[in-house]
Parts: sequence; C-alpha cells; structure tokens
Amino acid sequence: MEDNLEKIFIFIVEIDKLKTVYRQTYILGEDRPENDAEHSWHMAMMVPLLSRYSNEPIDEGKTIKLCLAHDLVEIYAGDTYCYDPKAGEDKAERENAAAKKLFSQLDEPLRSEISSLWTEFEDGKTPEAKFAAAMDRLQPLLLNLERNGRSWIQHGVCFSQAEKRVSRIKDGSEEIFRSIYKKLEDARDHGWFKV
Amino acid sequence: MEDNLEKIFIFIVEIDKLKTVYRQTYILGEDRPENDAEHSWHMAMMVPLLSRYSNEPIDEGKTIKLCLAHDLVEIYAGDTYCYDPKAGEDKAERENAAAKKLFSQLDEPLRSEISSLWTEFEDGKTPEAKFAAAMDRLQPLLLNLERNGRSWIQHGVCFSQAEKRVSRIKDGSEEIFRSIYKKLEDARDHGWFKV
Repeated sequence: MEDNLEKIFIFIVEIDKLKTVYRQTYILGEDRPENDAEHSWHMAMMVPLLSRYSNEPIDEGKTIKLCLAHDLVEIYAGDTYCYDPKAGEDKAERENAAAKKLFSQLDEPLRSEISSLWTEFEDGKTPEAKFAAAMDRLQPLLLNLERNGRSWIQHGVCFSQAEKRVSRIKDGSEEIFRSIYKKLEDARDHGWFKV
Repeated sequence: MEDNLEKIFIFIVEIDKLKTVYRQTYILGEDRPENDAEHSWHMAMMVPLLSRYSNEPIDEGKTIKLCLAHDLVEIYAGDTYCYDPKAGEDKAERENAAAKKLFSQLDEPLRSEISSLWTEFEDGKTPEAKFAAAMDRLQPLLLNLERNGRSWIQHGVCFSQAEKRVSRIKDGSEEIFRSIYKKLEDARDHGWFKV
C-alpha cells in the first residue's frame, strides 16, 4: 500500500501544473486570465447550485468529478481556444497523447478510474457528461458577460460562433439554455460581437 | 423558476472572488502564492485519488462538495494563516458573519444545502468532514515539501506547530498520516523548521 501512496503523492504534485495553464477568459477581481484549476473549481461548484435544472436526473458526485478532471490533459496538451479553428485541428491527437502520458503515472485501478472521467467527459454521451459540458460552456460565458464581452471583442468572435458554442448547453439543460440565450442576444445588442 | 436561475447566476459570479483570496502556500510552476479556488480544486481532486485510504467508508461525492465549499466564506472573511495565533482569535466570528452574508444571497432550499456543506466541514464530525479536513492539511503540505519548506522557513514555523497541524490527518486516514509524518521528520532533518 505504501508504495502506491507515494506514487499518488507524486501524481498530486504533478497535477499542480493545471494552475499554470491559462485560458482566454478573464477572472473578475484582477486583470489576469483564468487558469484551468480555477475554471475546474468554478464548474464543479456550479453543479450542486444548478443540478436541479438538468434535463435528465444526474449523479451529482459523478458530474462534479467529470468537471474536476476534464481539463487535466491540458497540463501537457495546453489550452486550445475554442474559437481557434487551426489549434482545434490537432486537438484530439495532442490530448490523447497527453492523456496517455498523464494517466500512466497512476497504477490500476486508479489509472482506469481517473482516465475514464476524462474519457466520459470527452465522449459527452451520459447525462452527467452532458451536464458537465453545459457547465464548461456556461462558466466562461457568465464571466465574459460580466466583463462586457472582453474576450469576444479581443478575439473578434462572431455571434454565430458564440451561439453555436452555447447551444451545447441545451443538451444538459433546456432551461439554463433559454435563460442564457437571452443574455447572449443582449450581448449582441451591446455590440460585443464582430459583425 | 427563471428568477431563481438569475439569482444563482449572480451567486456564481460572486464566488469568482475566491480566485483572489491568496494563501501562504506557493504553487510549484510559478513564483506566486496559491489562491483559495486553486487550493479547493486540488483538495477536491485528491478525494477520488485517496478515498480508499479513509479510516471509515465515505461518500466520495459528499466529501468532494465539502472540499469545494469549505473556503467560500473567505471571500468576505479573508484567509487566516494557520500559524498566526492573533488572526485565529476572531476567526470564528469573522467567518460566521461572512457565511451569513454569503449564503443569504441564495434562496431556499439551496441556501441550506450550500451553507450546510460549510457547517459540516467546520464541525468536523462526519467521516466525510474528517477526510476533507485531512485533504485540507495534506494539500499545502505536499506543495511545501516540494518547495523545500519555503513557507515554513518564511514564517519561522516550529516542527511542533507543523506536527500539531498535520496530526489532524490521522482522523481522516491513519495510513496517509503515517506516510506523511515520515516526510515531516525528513523536513525537520533538512532544517526547514525553526529550532
């Protein structure tokens, strides 16, 4: 048991790196981008706040674990900006290699347990994965709205691009989607999207 | 339902502030202190990695939620350094006032659900609260060991102070405690504690 524990401690130290993977979203209290660890915490915390709005019944604990682990592979693969089609091209390849490198640092059965969280999120088929994906879309959207569309303006994002991205929220929660879509239309009326 | 959703969105935006509450621990990849959101993510992610070492059977999802929410009140109360006896004096008072201010921004039943996560963690009586408290002690310890005792040296922490703090890990997991205690003794041998 003790050797295993030592290996898990090393893994815990390794994933500290998620705190230095920066995203295109800005946090609200300081003038700096958000990192993946902060984003994952925020998404996970949103699950107990919003789970009652899920289209289908979900296992909250499971959904939270998907949120916590969904970006781990970016430790090696880096963050891929969702509106960058070029970076998106080899995203799957980069992330699969990163997953292999990362999860192989754990022994079984933990290796399968933790890597399956990432796989389930990526596959997006279970009710939990759909709701976690909705949180992944909603979290930066709420921050970006609060920041008067800063990252949309900075990157020249069109309304149709944001609309397409936000539409995935519908698969997790029709009700949250309807509410947030109105805010997206308001953002368009404010002129925060490229025309 | 829609009014409630709007209120929850406002709460989600409010708790973004946890990302600017800084701690005395340093992250590994950059020369900067860790913030509470990063710390909470790391602790929560440690639960599925270490839950099999818990003294008692625990509900993983519940334990993770305790980790995610345990520092929320610091948004208003600030971080209290664990080795600062003066700041510790009015900690409970400050945090109770902060809890009231924060959780009253939610409607029932969410208000009770989320505030009870904080209360359960603070009370430290359930197996889940004990394991979450163990994660709260273990996470900064692992980072600090990796940083060659940086924050102990910086604040002139004695071995007996660190020992007392780490002993709470025993209530969550005897096995993790034994393993980490050896590392603490090594740290003492390295001269990282005030004599």
